[in-house]
Amino acid sequence: MTTDTLPVLAILGGTGDLGTGLARRWAQAGYRVIIGSRTADKAEAAVADLREVMAERGVAAVAVEAMENQAAAEAADIITLTVPFSHQASTLEQLKPALQGKILIDVTVPLVPPRVARVQLPEQGSAGQIAQEILGEEVAVVSAFQNVAAHHLQEGAGLDCDVLVCGNKKEARAEVIKLVEAAGMRGFHAGMINNAAAAEALTSVLITINKQYSCHAGIRITGLDHAE
Amino acid sequence: MTTDTLPVLAILGGTGDLGTGLARRWAQAGYRVIIGSRTADKAEAAVADLREVMAERGVAAVAVEAMENQAAAEAADIITLTVPFSHQASTLEQLKPALQGKILIDVTVPLVPPRVARVQLPEQGSAGQIAQEILGEEVAVVSAFQNVAAHHLQEGAGLDCDVLVCGNKKEARAEVIKLVEAAGMRGFHAGMINNAAAAEALTSVLITINKQYSCHAGIRITGLDHAE
Repeated sequence: MTTDTLPVLAILGGTGDLGTGLARRWAQAGYRVIIGSRTADKAEAAVADLREVMAERGVAAVAVEAMENQAAAEAADIITLTVPFSHQASTLEQLKPALQGKILIDVTVPLVPPRVARVQLPEQGSAGQIAQEILGEEVAVVSAFQNVAAHHLQEGAGLDCDVLVCGNKKEARAEVIKLVEAAGMRGFHAGMINNAAAAEALTSVLITINKQYSCHAGIRITGLDHAE
Repeated sequence: MTTDTLPVLAILGGTGDLGTGLARRWAQAGYRVIIGSRTADKAEAAVADLREVMAERGVAAVAVEAMENQAAAEAADIITLTVPFSHQASTLEQLKPALQGKILIDVTVPLVPPRVARVQLPEQGSAGQIAQEILGEEVAVVSAFQNVAAHHLQEGAGLDCDVLVCGNKKEARAEVIKLVEAAGMRGFHAGMINNAAAAEALTSVLITINKQYSCHAGIRITGLDHAE
């Protein structure tokens, strides 16, 4: 697998826990990954950290670089947004021109601190719908990765978690499902962008379960085998 | 296990697919089950059908009877509501006096036909919240069973599906988790009644997946093992 045939990925908010996890997975899978942040310094530090982790894992070479969010969005084919909900709208308003014609993977979970274990979906239905409304129809917003524990993603081990992939364009969902698989998980076409509400709400349920079991819970889709 | 020590269960809308499945599971587990319907005739037919299925399975005796919804709600300790969303509010308004001081298991999924594969949660947040608002604080509304395929529930076989159990009272959730386990599944404390939105929204996602795979999908919580 060479990076020539693969889309260039940017992760905005790529210095956070989930962004770090996705960057490690995709870099290790051979993708060119741009880590975006509000300042180039923070992005550079995240890249240095990623290179160190890859070296520890014996991964020979990775194609990773640091940029500010704006430059990262311009340089990439598929852009993943992993900023907190409170920064989602402002970040997308700012980057809207750079995202036209591209795929935006929205990982935003509309948590309302301090009650993050309580489902409090926004008036618009979901963070995914907010992203699609802000960006307009020329950006294919695909919602994904809300139910994956950053802890597990950051590790190099196997992942016992499925990913619900929602978005209004089937081809865009299919592209994202490839990235889910590259990160070591199964991805499912989970419907239009409205359905992002399910995965977003489920995050608060998983936080509730994590507290009880001191764990990093995820979900799996069962019952796919017709014969069972 | 004798029925003397177990709560008496009523299933309102107990002639539908999901109600039928729950009635079979609980009757087989030794609970006294009242199948409620809008007419006694329909409830009687459901009871006759259940007895036939139990006989086929070689289950010696079950404690099942038929009643109209109102009488069923009055006679039972724990009442399960499995009517369509369009009948939820009117049914609960009518039965509100009979439900005071009891546990109401709300299985309602706020699907909006014909687009049942699209998440369209109600203004109140979830059907579970609607139930709690209508019934008031003296009824312990517990939301559960939205993600279990009726098809699998009706069968006698093992169930590869977990149940998210939401409600404002922990003791009531714990009672419902016992019933989840009696039906052959794992139940999880999934938070306050607001969190019912997660399970309700997930049903539309599972319908989406069912269409693609011609299956009856469910979910499992993963990552509970601290050591993994």
